[in-house]
Amino acid sequence: MTWNISNHALSAESLLNSESIFALGNGYLGVRGNFEEGYTEEMDSIRGTYLNAFHDVISIPYGEKLHGFPSTQQKLVNGIDSQGIRVYIGEGEELFSLFEGKVLSYERYLHLDKGYAQRDIHWQSPSGKEIKISFRRLISFEYRELFAIDIVIEAVNFTGPVKLVSTVNGDVRNYTAVNDPRVASGHAKLLTVKECGIQEHYAYVMSETTESDLQMACVTRHQYGGNPRVQMNNNATTAECTYIFSLEQPVHFTKWNVYTDTLRHGESPIAQGFEIQDGLQGKSFEDLVVLQQGYMDQFWKSSDIIIENDTSLQEGIRFNVFQLLQSAGRDPYSNISAKGLTGEGYEGHYFWDTEIYMFPVFLMTQPDMAKQLLVYRHSTLEQARDRAREMGHAAGALFPWRTISGTECSSFFPSGTAQYHISADIAYSYAQYYLAVEDPSFLMQYGAEVLFETARLWIEIGHHYQGAFHIDEVTGPDEYTCCVNNNYYTNAMAQNNLKWAARSFEILKAYDESGLMALCDRLGVSVEEVEGWQQASDAMCLPYDEELGINPQDDTFLRKKLWDFENTPKEKYPLLLNYHPLTIYRHQVCKQADTVLAHFLLEDAQDVETIRRSYDYYEGITTHDSSLSSCIFSIMASKVGYADKAYNYFTETARLDLDNTHGNTKDGLHLANMGGTWMAIVYGFAGVRLKESGLSLTPTIPTSWDRYAFRIRYRGRLIQFQIHTGGFQIELLEGEELQIQVYGEQVSLALHQSVEQSLL
Amino acid sequence: MTWNISNHALSAESLLNSESIFALGNGYLGVRGNFEEGYTEEMDSIRGTYLNAFHDVISIPYGEKLHGFPSTQQKLVNGIDSQGIRVYIGEGEELFSLFEGKVLSYERYLHLDKGYAQRDIHWQSPSGKEIKISFRRLISFEYRELFAIDIVIEAVNFTGPVKLVSTVNGDVRNYTAVNDPRVASGHAKLLTVKECGIQEHYAYVMSETTESDLQMACVTRHQYGGNPRVQMNNNATTAECTYIFSLEQPVHFTKWNVYTDTLRHGESPIAQGFEIQDGLQGKSFEDLVVLQQGYMDQFWKSSDIIIENDTSLQEGIRFNVFQLLQSAGRDPYSNISAKGLTGEGYEGHYFWDTEIYMFPVFLMTQPDMAKQLLVYRHSTLEQARDRAREMGHAAGALFPWRTISGTECSSFFPSGTAQYHISADIAYSYAQYYLAVEDPSFLMQYGAEVLFETARLWIEIGHHYQGAFHIDEVTGPDEYTCCVNNNYYTNAMAQNNLKWAARSFEILKAYDESGLMALCDRLGVSVEEVEGWQQASDAMCLPYDEELGINPQDDTFLRKKLWDFENTPKEKYPLLLNYHPLTIYRHQVCKQADTVLAHFLLEDAQDVETIRRSYDYYEGITTHDSSLSSCIFSIMASKVGYADKAYNYFTETARLDLDNTHGNTKDGLHLANMGGTWMAIVYGFAGVRLKESGLSLTPTIPTSWDRYAFRIRYRGRLIQFQIHTGGFQIELLEGEELQIQVYGEQVSLALHQSVEQSLL
Repeated sequence: MTWNISNHALSAESLLNSESIFALGNGYLGVRGNFEEGYTEEMDSIRGTYLNAFHDVISIPYGEKLHGFPSTQQKLVNGIDSQGIRVYIGEGEELFSLFEGKVLSYERYLHLDKGYAQRDIHWQSPSGKEIKISFRRLISFEYRELFAIDIVIEAVNFTGPVKLVSTVNGDVRNYTAVNDPRVASGHAKLLTVKECGIQEHYAYVMSETTESDLQMACVTRHQYGGNPRVQMNNNATTAECTYIFSLEQPVHFTKWNVYTDTLRHGESPIAQGFEIQDGLQGKSFEDLVVLQQGYMDQFWKSSDIIIENDTSLQEGIRFNVFQLLQSAGRDPYSNISAKGLTGEGYEGHYFWDTEIYMFPVFLMTQPDMAKQLLVYRHSTLEQARDRAREMGHAAGALFPWRTISGTECSSFFPSGTAQYHISADIAYSYAQYYLAVEDPSFLMQYGAEVLFETARLWIEIGHHYQGAFHIDEVTGPDEYTCCVNNNYYTNAMAQNNLKWAARSFEILKAYDESGLMALCDRLGVSVEEVEGWQQASDAMCLPYDEELGINPQDDTFLRKKLWDFENTPKEKYPLLLNYHPLTIYRHQVCKQADTVLAHFLLEDAQDVETIRRSYDYYEGITTHDSSLSSCIFSIMASKVGYADKAYNYFTETARLDLDNTHGNTKDGLHLANMGGTWMAIVYGFAGVRLKESGLSLTPTIPTSWDRYAFRIRYRGRLIQFQIHTGGFQIELLEGEELQIQVYGEQVSLALHQSVEQSLL
Repeated sequence: MTWNISNHALSAESLLNSESIFALGNGYLGVRGNFEEGYTEEMDSIRGTYLNAFHDVISIPYGEKLHGFPSTQQKLVNGIDSQGIRVYIGEGEELFSLFEGKVLSYERYLHLDKGYAQRDIHWQSPSGKEIKISFRRLISFEYRELFAIDIVIEAVNFTGPVKLVSTVNGDVRNYTAVNDPRVASGHAKLLTVKECGIQEHYAYVMSETTESDLQMACVTRHQYGGNPRVQMNNNATTAECTYIFSLEQPVHFTKWNVYTDTLRHGESPIAQGFEIQDGLQGKSFEDLVVLQQGYMDQFWKSSDIIIENDTSLQEGIRFNVFQLLQSAGRDPYSNISAKGLTGEGYEGHYFWDTEIYMFPVFLMTQPDMAKQLLVYRHSTLEQARDRAREMGHAAGALFPWRTISGTECSSFFPSGTAQYHISADIAYSYAQYYLAVEDPSFLMQYGAEVLFETARLWIEIGHHYQGAFHIDEVTGPDEYTCCVNNNYYTNAMAQNNLKWAARSFEILKAYDESGLMALCDRLGVSVEEVEGWQQASDAMCLPYDEELGINPQDDTFLRKKLWDFENTPKEKYPLLLNYHPLTIYRHQVCKQADTVLAHFLLEDAQDVETIRRSYDYYEGITTHDSSLSSCIFSIMASKVGYADKAYNYFTETARLDLDNTHGNTKDGLHLANMGGTWMAIVYGFAGVRLKESGLSLTPTIPTSWDRYAFRIRYRGRLIQFQIHTGGFQIELLEGEELQIQVYGEQVSLALHQSVEQSLL
């Protein structure tokens, strides 16, 4: 059961959420889990097809627009819809629909192991005709442009024709909701059809965005047995292909949709679509299934997490990891949006969610995919430099709070642009990549430039004051306190950023000094500047409160009024939707982990007692109104020895979307939380850490579990970890011998030799 | 000369600015100084007629809208245009225009002493016909609804007809400018004509706003000698009246425009207009001139400031005081907008400018008008209470940063709503009124309620911490630092607010205890609550820096980086238009007086040495990018003994609009600065202060002046002050004997007895 997500419900609400849960994608192309045949008119649906990073540019309105407020933003475009297949049965042409006639049986699955989705239906038409109909849909990991739908139809109690009407529809629009700030409220119509037609056995639509002048095309081909009557035609926006079969034997029908766009396929996306389709000729849907299975086997080999004797959590974690795989961009144009390719929430923007919550999963299990995410950020470095200049900084690069193509899309700077930490978060991920993969050539080609330019930013905005390096007027991860001085998280991350900029200089000097000098020449980096980074890092102000023995969130946080939780009724949460920001900012109250997150990412900056006291303090004032919070509290509860809390926070998050606990799964899945659940196990329960000193772990197991297991790729190795009640076992499955640390002690791993030990 | 503002230029730019400078108004009705006959097509003009507080409601757009961000704002409406009079001469009906034919002479005056404007022209038509034409226009202080235009036309070298075409035009729109944030960029068409017609000798237009459902009407009547041919007609939006005179003797023609609106005149503004017009029958323009002269004489009697031997400054200060008179609302619906009734900049909104920069002029010279301004604020108390609740405060009233009808119109809270000090500023003006007028009945009826509710606000948002009362997350007057803790200005003003709430309780207890108890019952105020106000006031945190010996602008201001003025080129000012707010906030740099303003308003909170050091420190980092700054620095330079600086700041501000030094006089005059120039003389050079200890002064005189003089109304007295090189003279012109303080010494004033003394 734990490899199949199933939901056989047919209620309107369940279907809307299922559109996100049953979404398929391959990092390039994503399609929501809509029904091919549609719902009824009155049912709400977000019918969606997305190409990662394929966006339009829309203007941002302001009541008062100040200097540096972005005038435009990007918005992920809902693209050409190729899901449509209507089925008519019998001479009377009764339209198949799960909302008419009688559903004799209905099953729906998302096969996490096989990488496709399936619906099996036994249906009786209003006039009494019965059919069995099975839909399978697959977005290929081998052929990134391909979305295939396979249908088998069998008559149960009648003979007669069956008519399939398959559409490629360019008349699409984005979803809007006026009253939910997390969903866009305007700009629905972004795509205009430029070409629509039939050419030989291909139906195609090509559309263009209004402002960004991007084009996408969908070229569709149908594959079937038998000898149906065929009719293909089109109007200005939709191509329609009709196939009438005599239903003497089961009908097998496959729709091959190929998506291309001008970001990736040059100037003629239709021609490219034809070419790709030509290359797919002769393949069957079964061939695709086999290829997909091979890909998935390879994926799960290093990415699976096993939780024994808890089906529900097992299902949750596998679903989460699978959705991360489906959502991650694999080219320099794209990244992982907050909702992946599963919906339009947050308008398809990329946030720090990628580097801090999702990148680690790839880094530790699929490092090549992790690398792609870094390549994307590097490709936006020029925009980050421009943004720094626009803000008034003479040097450095400031990465945008939210973006698709690299420019800032946030219109509310106190909890947007002010989160300068995003630049340090990105720098952190480059350093982590170096630690996990140890690839100095990548550091030379990509990492160093990002580390240097972000280090420059901190020098630009910070200043030495009374012997410490101060960073003023920034916002940390916790958006319930904005625009403060010396936010602990930001300063700690900037310290790491500056240190790694200087460290990279040393590493590359040893690796390829002339290459380094060429880079430094190009960027105008001098040895003195590098020394300045190290000095600022060494002198970084990390606020500490003597009385409480904790790190204050910022210089003045602990002097503020405590939020009156006792007199805040439940319906007033999330606070963000019920209090003016000023009133929230005025209090000690956190939306999410901030200092606690810094203690996770940079645990060696403080002793464990301080970290525990900080945990205790901040837990008492954190609302977890953000889905980025509980997973971090779970990890840190593990770290400081609060096993029950660690487990409770974990269970709150593991099935967040499957159970729609935040109530907005319909707008897309919470990808960052999904990464967080993986981290809560690997970094939390198992205590894995990645540092200059190497790989380490401090395994624990939740009391209600018998066993859990996961694998990690590290410096060319594949290592398996199994933790069970009372003990754990580590085995090096691939690669050379290795020393790791367990509970602070060195342990040697040799190929295929299992190390077993008791839990502490 | 110093009673006449003259500008005989006819260039396009000069005329656009002159529209603001020659604007007329009476606090209810305001008309810009446009030409009756119009300009040429291609000349830019802001043709404007405004009824104070007559507004529409428009929506505010946001990229991301959070809780408590106002969804709508009010906007002053450009109303029905009754300025139009076209003049055609001769049989050929040549249209009179200063931009065709030949202008043989042209003079234009604003008579500050008489209260009207005038244009005298000798013009030769393209065909050679010459006329002398004189326009006078007057907005009556006696009849608030009346705007009259008087024309005399004389033929110089021809005989023949003259045709006057007078219009009442409802097809009007607000001015918009896309690229200037200080002017609105959208929502031009706010008024729709509902009725337009001719009834007997009246032409009328009645229009309605789109959202606020307010109506205004203009009813116009024409008065003339001779026996012209008359034609009156109208279309859907404009009424047009044509009069053809034979020009055998000079034509004398008067246009009487009466404006009414549903805010003030009930539901039938047209009928009300007819009625008011009926009441004016039989009066001549000369009658109006005489009445106006009487009003002006009475006004100048207490409001004039004389500066001897500096014509330019003399003209500046009289113009400023005159424009304040023209702009101040006299009813509970209206106040003084940032641009008065002279233009559409800042959309006709009322700010703290009124209480801190303009109210003092009225308080000390026209206390009845000052009282009206307080009555307006009191009338919006309910909206201020609602706003406090919306922000999340359980008690108290939060006045809006910018408003017309009382609700918050600011869309950018860091330098809008966060300026909580506006509530303390309003409280301050009530306390000042009590000190100047000593009217406990007004305190009972209006003042106490405002003082109590604003005091509650501070208790609500502040908190006791380590023995001091802290106020977090507010913005002071200086908008180059936002959302800080313990802003000195805010805390000092809140301290005064709390003190005066408690003080009022004591005053009213002595005056009318049962009245006070009734008030307290209604508001739920207890003796304990009043004690809490006093305690918070006594414990107020007023940050002080031991090292510098100054009051820091806020808790962390002095720890920030200093702005790099040396490397900031001139074209980068104002900083606001060239740097992102975060970058500005990150530095020690001030847009305007903040702590220095607190030292002016509450000078007894610190010793003069601290005030001087603060002055020195903040002067070095203040850009004066706001027109509210220089006047305060002038006043405080006088206080701390920097006579040259005081004079220089004063001269920079005295003619700001007459000389268009800020470059945007076309959008309306800078009313707050105008009040500031009055204060720079009376509070600055003369050192007048109003405290519980009474009226005091510390006179000085700028070295280049021979003599200056002004008058003050104080507790029923009228007192004249004359300061000359070396000495000064004080005379009680009206009222009972009085003790005042001069240079800290008691001086007794008795009616008509002059006190003379040397300057210190």
